Parts: sequence; C-alpha cells; structure tokens
Amino acid sequence: MSERVVIIGGDAAGMSAASQARRLKPVGELEIVVFERGHFTSYSACGIPYWVGGQVADRDDLIARTPEEHRARGIDLRLGAEVLEIDVPGTRVRVRDSADDTETWWDYDKLVIATGATPIRPPLPGIDAAGVHGVQTLDDGQALIDTLRRTEGRRAVVVGAGYIGVEMAEAMINRGYEVTMLNRGTEPMATLDPDMGVLIRKAMEGMGIRVIGDTEVTAVRTDDSGRVRAVAADDTEYPADVVVLGIGVRPATDLARSAGLPLGAGGGLLTDMAMRVRGHENIWAGGDCVEVLDLVSGAERHIPLGTHANKHGQIIGSGVGGDYGTFPGVVGTAVSKVCDLEVARTGLREKDAQRAGLQYVTATIESTSRSGYFPGAAPMTVKMLAERRTGRLLGVQIVGREGAGKRIDIAAVALTARMTVEQIAALDLGYAPPFSPVWDPVQVAARKAVSAVRKRG
Amino acid sequence: MSERVVIIGGDAAGMSAASQARRLKPVGELEIVVFERGHFTSYSACGIPYWVGGQVADRDDLIARTPEEHRARGIDLRLGAEVLEIDVPGTRVRVRDSADDTETWWDYDKLVIATGATPIRPPLPGIDAAGVHGVQTLDDGQALIDTLRRTEGRRAVVVGAGYIGVEMAEAMINRGYEVTMLNRGTEPMATLDPDMGVLIRKAMEGMGIRVIGDTEVTAVRTDDSGRVRAVAADDTEYPADVVVLGIGVRPATDLARSAGLPLGAGGGLLTDMAMRVRGHENIWAGGDCVEVLDLVSGAERHIPLGTHANKHGQIIGSGVGGDYGTFPGVVGTAVSKVCDLEVARTGLREKDAQRAGLQYVTATIESTSRSGYFPGAAPMTVKMLAERRTGRLLGVQIVGREGAGKRIDIAAVALTARMTVEQIAALDLGYAPPFSPVWDPVQVAARKAVSAVRKRG
Repeated sequence: MSERVVIIGGDAAGMSAASQARRLKPVGELEIVVFERGHFTSYSACGIPYWVGGQVADRDDLIARTPEEHRARGIDLRLGAEVLEIDVPGTRVRVRDSADDTETWWDYDKLVIATGATPIRPPLPGIDAAGVHGVQTLDDGQALIDTLRRTEGRRAVVVGAGYIGVEMAEAMINRGYEVTMLNRGTEPMATLDPDMGVLIRKAMEGMGIRVIGDTEVTAVRTDDSGRVRAVAADDTEYPADVVVLGIGVRPATDLARSAGLPLGAGGGLLTDMAMRVRGHENIWAGGDCVEVLDLVSGAERHIPLGTHANKHGQIIGSGVGGDYGTFPGVVGTAVSKVCDLEVARTGLREKDAQRAGLQYVTATIESTSRSGYFPGAAPMTVKMLAERRTGRLLGVQIVGREGAGKRIDIAAVALTARMTVEQIAALDLGYAPPFSPVWDPVQVAARKAVSAVRKRG
Repeated sequence: MSERVVIIGGDAAGMSAASQARRLKPVGELEIVVFERGHFTSYSACGIPYWVGGQVADRDDLIARTPEEHRARGIDLRLGAEVLEIDVPGTRVRVRDSADDTETWWDYDKLVIATGATPIRPPLPGIDAAGVHGVQTLDDGQALIDTLRRTEGRRAVVVGAGYIGVEMAEAMINRGYEVTMLNRGTEPMATLDPDMGVLIRKAMEGMGIRVIGDTEVTAVRTDDSGRVRAVAADDTEYPADVVVLGIGVRPATDLARSAGLPLGAGGGLLTDMAMRVRGHENIWAGGDCVEVLDLVSGAERHIPLGTHANKHGQIIGSGVGGDYGTFPGVVGTAVSKVCDLEVARTGLREKDAQRAGLQYVTATIESTSRSGYFPGAAPMTVKMLAERRTGRLLGVQIVGREGAGKRIDIAAVALTARMTVEQIAALDLGYAPPFSPVWDPVQVAARKAVSAVRKRG
C-alpha cells in the first residue's frame, strides 16, 4: 500500500527531503510529488551574486540537480505548479498548473512545506518600476542580467547593506558600474556590531563603492516610459539606471498562515526537533520558511540560509521515509566575502546579548592569518563577547583577508559545546607558519576576553 | 623580599614563562634569570624549513623577540650558558658559561625546565660527517644554509618522512636540488594512516621528489676528506652532497633524569595540570621536554609543537608569578603544507584507537574547499574515525589544497567537547560559496560516519 508525500517547494529543503525520502523508500512504497511554482530546482541561491558579478559563468553551474535527474530517481516533480491552498483537515492541497491554468486538488498522506522566503519589497512609490530587481531566485537573477544587457547607463543603486546587498554591490562594481549603496543602518552588515561593520564600509569605499548610511529610501523615481531613473532617500535623489534590492527576506508563509499552522514572531513556521510543524504529526516544514532555535540565546529566530535548508531537508526526508533525525538548532554562523575581505560572525552581537538579558565583556584584537613572518600573512580583526562571571563564549565576529572567514567555525563549535573563553584559549588548534601564528587569532581574542572577564568580575 | 626564578632554556616555553611572570611581578619582587645554551631566543623553529627553502628571506624574521628586548623588560637572559646539573635538594643549578668556560652554582626559589627536544641521530657509521645536518635550532639551520652555499653538488638526501622531513624535502626542491627521501615506514607522514599518507607521497612524487619507503638507513658514506658522499639504506647507496635528518626528536631530559625528576614512557617530564613537575611544588616544566595528556586516548604522549610550548610558558609564568592557570591537555592536532598540498590531522589514527582498546568505524570522503561551481574550488579528502556504538568522534585526517588544512580545527574543538559524529553533522558552520559547499567537507565525512556507526552497530 503506497503512501503519498506532497512537497511544496522544489529548492534546497524540498528537494533534499525528496531525495532522502526516496533513498529510504522505493517507488512502490512512497509516491513523492513536488510542486514548484518556478522553473528551476535545487539551485544555489547564494551563488546568484557571483553569477551576476561574472565569477560564475553560467546559470546552469548553480543548479546542483536538474528536474530530469530528480525525475529519473522516481520523484514526480512538477514545475510551474503553484499550491494555492492547504486543506489541513482534508489532507489535500489545491494546485494551479501555470501551463494550462487549471486547478486540481491533490490528497496527501504526508505534507512537506518548503516554500522558502520572499524578498522584502517596501511599499514605496515606483518600487515595481522596470529596472528594479530583487535577487532571490534564479528567475530574479536572470531578469537582472537581462536588464543589465539592455541598459546603457552604468549607475547602479543597491538598497540595503546586508549580505545580499554587499555581495550585489561588489557584483555591480565587477561589471563596471558606478555603485551607490543606501543603508538604513549606520554601517553595512547589521549582523555585525557597528564597530566591526565600519571595517566593511571602509573596504567597500576602497573599492570605489559609495556607501550612504543612516538613510531611508522614500521612493523610486521613474522616467516617462516607467523605467527607474533615480532613488529618493531622505532629501537626496540618487540617479540610477538599475536598482538592486537587498533589503532582506521574510518567510513565505502566507499559505501556512491561511491553513492555520503555527507561526513564530519572525513569521516563520514553528516546528519540533524532527522538523514537524508543531501539533501536526503528518506535516513537516524546513528551509527559509521556518524559524530555528538559537542555541545561544534560547530564542527562536528566522535565519534563511542554504546550509540550514539542506540539513532540514535531510531530516525531513528521514522522517517522511520512516527513519529518525533531529535538528538541534543553530548558533547563528554566517560568512561572506566582499572583494578580498572575509567577514564572519557567530553567536550574539552586543544588542542580542542585551536583549537576552546577558551581561558580557568584549575583547577585540588584531592578528594575522599566518605567522607574521610568513609570505601572505594578512591582518585580521577578531571581536569576542563572553558572559560576565561565567566567561561563557557568547559570540565572535571576524573581519580579515584570506584565511580569516572560516576561522569562525572554531567559535561555532565552541558555542555549540558551551565553552568558556578560558577553554577556547586552551584549545589544541592547528598550527604551522603557513596557517596560523602560534596562538590562533581566535585564541588571542579568547585570552583578552579571559582578562576582561576577570577584571569585570 | 625578592625571589629568584631560574629558567633553563630560552626558547618558546622558557621565554613565554619569563614574559608572563614579569607581567605579573615587577623587578623588585621577582628576579628572573634565563640560561640558554645557544645564541638565540624566542624563535620559530617551525619556520626553519621555510627559511632554508627561501620563502622566509632572513633568519631574523624568525626571531619574535631579541635578547635585548627581553633584557629591556627586566629579564636577566644569559646566552651561551649551559646548565650542567640540577641540585633539587639544594635548590640550585650548576651553569657553565661558554664565553669564559667557568662554572657557577646559582640558587633558585623557583625553577622552570624548558630544555626542549633533541633531534634523533641514529648511531650509524658516518652520521657525524660534514654535510649531515639536523634542523632543530636556528644554529642548525644556519649551519645547513652555510653548507648549501659551499657545496657544488645538487643531490640531497632527506632521512625521515615526518613533518620536518617532508618540509625539508620541499625546501631542498625549492632550492633546485635533486631530492631523495628515505622513509622507514611505507608512506610519508606516519602521523596519518597510510591510506592518507599515500596522497602525500603522490604529491611529492609529482613535485619531482624521489620517495623511497620501507627502507632502513644503515650508514652514511664519506669521501677521503670526511664529507658525506652517499647514504646507504638496505642494499642501495643513494649519492648525496648534503643529508638532512628529519627523523624526529626526543625530549631533552638528561638533566632532569640525572636530578631524579619523574619521566614518562616517552622520555618527557611528567607534570600536573598547572605544569609543575609531579611531586615538586617549586619546579615547573613545559614545551618540548614534557609529556602532555592526550584527551582522546587518556594517555600521556610526547608531542613537540611550538603552539603547546607557548601555552605551557604562559601557564608556567602565571604560576611562577603567583596567579593561576592550567593546561588541560591536547587532542593531537597538527597541520602542515607540502607545496600546495595541505595536510592536517587530529585525534587518533586507526592504530592509536586499536592500542587504546577502542573499536571504531572509518569514513573517507572526497569533497571541495568551496562550492563546486565557485572559482578555485579544490578537491579535499577527509577521513574520520568514530567509536563503534557511541559514535563519538575519535580522529580526523585531511589532505587537500587551499582551504583544507585549517578545517581540522572543527574536529579539534569537537574532539575536545567529546562530540559524536551525529552532533558534528548538525553543527552550524560557516557557509557561503567562496568558503564551502553547502555541507562542509568535515560534515560530509561525519554523515558518512553516522551511517557507518549505525551499520556496524
């Protein structure tokens, strides 16, 4: 007797779930149907800025597995198929096929919600003008590249200074544009404390990007043909031939909300440890549409990242396939590259710690990626937060050059293990002159944090 | 009332101890006397192969702090001063000054033994011939460079295939020598399992180094002038204009042994958690002359590494200065570079696990340093050992190219925290296309190890 699992969304979480379930159950035992609204599956959304910037040559390079490959493994993948409604009591979904504009109800035994996230588009005058682009999906990326090919002007305005905004600003510089970045916050990358964000602003300015902070976009101005011509922010107009929105995303949970499924404060679906929607034994959710447990603060947060989506999918597929797995939570690790600057963070920023009621000390140090005398040794700044009294690690931020970024993993594992900064200073990390000074920069910061904890008491 | 601490040995451990003690106690409260047999202090022995190979231009680049700088901070540093005897009941040491060949007894209140390690020189015929060099100290390195400048022949034989041997083979290739490496073991780098060592041999062969395994050196052959002309191993003679010994080191503990201080099975001094020599409240020891606790196997081992020596020194200096600190132990992390190959290891090899009575599974995977589509993505092999049943991580070995080596730190922290491979697979590590595939290679290995643990039962 075959069961049917319906999966809504054919990107990282959905297709990982489908693949893992298929590994566990053959075609005769489990029918797997995936409805994907768009026209691509299993692609790296994180790679889109590099495709736009020309470092990745071809769109297809970003596609890990094609629809045909999924189908060959016994997954009934339907593209251009949008789920319009989830009928939870009736265990069925209503699907519109965009090819012939028909609607059909599909019954399910098990349901997986992997609807991802939607770029935030503030309701500003002109926001939907031609030449204004988000970069969330491959379709978005393709539309932007098409616009760039058609447009003669070379002035780009990037709205927002988070990861996507910063990566897109670099991509546009790499394509030869004059780039202005408009940021509501004071410094770029609000996922870092401002005293680290300033290092990123300076690096971006060094690349020729004009970075405007503390500014609020109020309108997109268009020409007579309805194309963008400028972005208005506060009292200034910034001329623009193309506008890229990098304001962030929100969980795409309208369907889930209409179906009465439980959402958190960040708008994401709430799940249990096995990624089942809370209170629903036959519904799973994962990827950018869910909230995840932050192991450091104990709060639930919306952190859209491909690496979490893939893990969720694997766990969901295990559950759907009758096996067992859990997602214990995150510590908030992220790493990014701005030209030759590597930027990484994990755990809590100062304001996160304050909100969580944690008292803390900070330690910021300068070190190098290799032994100081070794060719290629590059400077690196590490900021560390430790809890007052206990000395427990709360967070780390790193800005540096080659070899800086992935050092954040030391802190990510230490946070997961709830280590103190004193334990971190004693860790047996890899040392040789081409790789590290004799005290790894993360340990230099830990030593300074140990002193700060003792001093503060 | 001022105390006197006498420190034997002026390299990493000894000078770190001196500096830290001085930070805590001013000159009027603590007299710090350091006796160093050689003529340099605080230098990076790990950097010597890169100096010989020409990547580090100048000997002085390897010196972190000169004797004058130490003296300016109130440390009474005496070079060319060899301690010949420790009189433990009399709390004094006998010192020969090589400048005038006089001997003096010095009283101490506190004693620090930081005598380091001695290169192993097997008692073979001809081993002391001109042209045969160890590379443990700056003096050794200078002597080798002087020999290379004087010698016309371009044939180098490296005896031993550990870190130093492999690094020296590369250094000699970089200087334009024909290099033959003679190895008693089957594959280079016996700190890895042979199935990973073979990758290093192939890379070395690809660089033009002749690697001979399973061979025992029996003699060094000399010409009429007493200079080396060949190395004999088994039935073969390998012509040599210069020979570099990279056979390893043993703890330099003759002084300590004569004084009746406790030594371990590996010949190193045994200490407590605060780096005090066991049973002796006023004697500390650290660096390459001590044994350290291996947190994974629970055994004591001799692991000479600059990073441990610096930590020891810092803890000893704290103790001597009246503060408090401990050295919890190591997990056996090491990283090295062979041309563009990065080699790293931590925890137990298969034979270590067997010796410790641990049953285990292994998982070996191939992945890439960045997302597969990202420019510069380079292949990487990761081998992981996990305990049978519990799934506890036991060890990791990595061989790859740029970005491979320092990933060992993920495993080093996880070993310290006694994580299982399932916990490692769930870690929140830094992900972005320029830094990692969506599953970090270490996690890909962890997932495979999880399966292996379940299968084995």
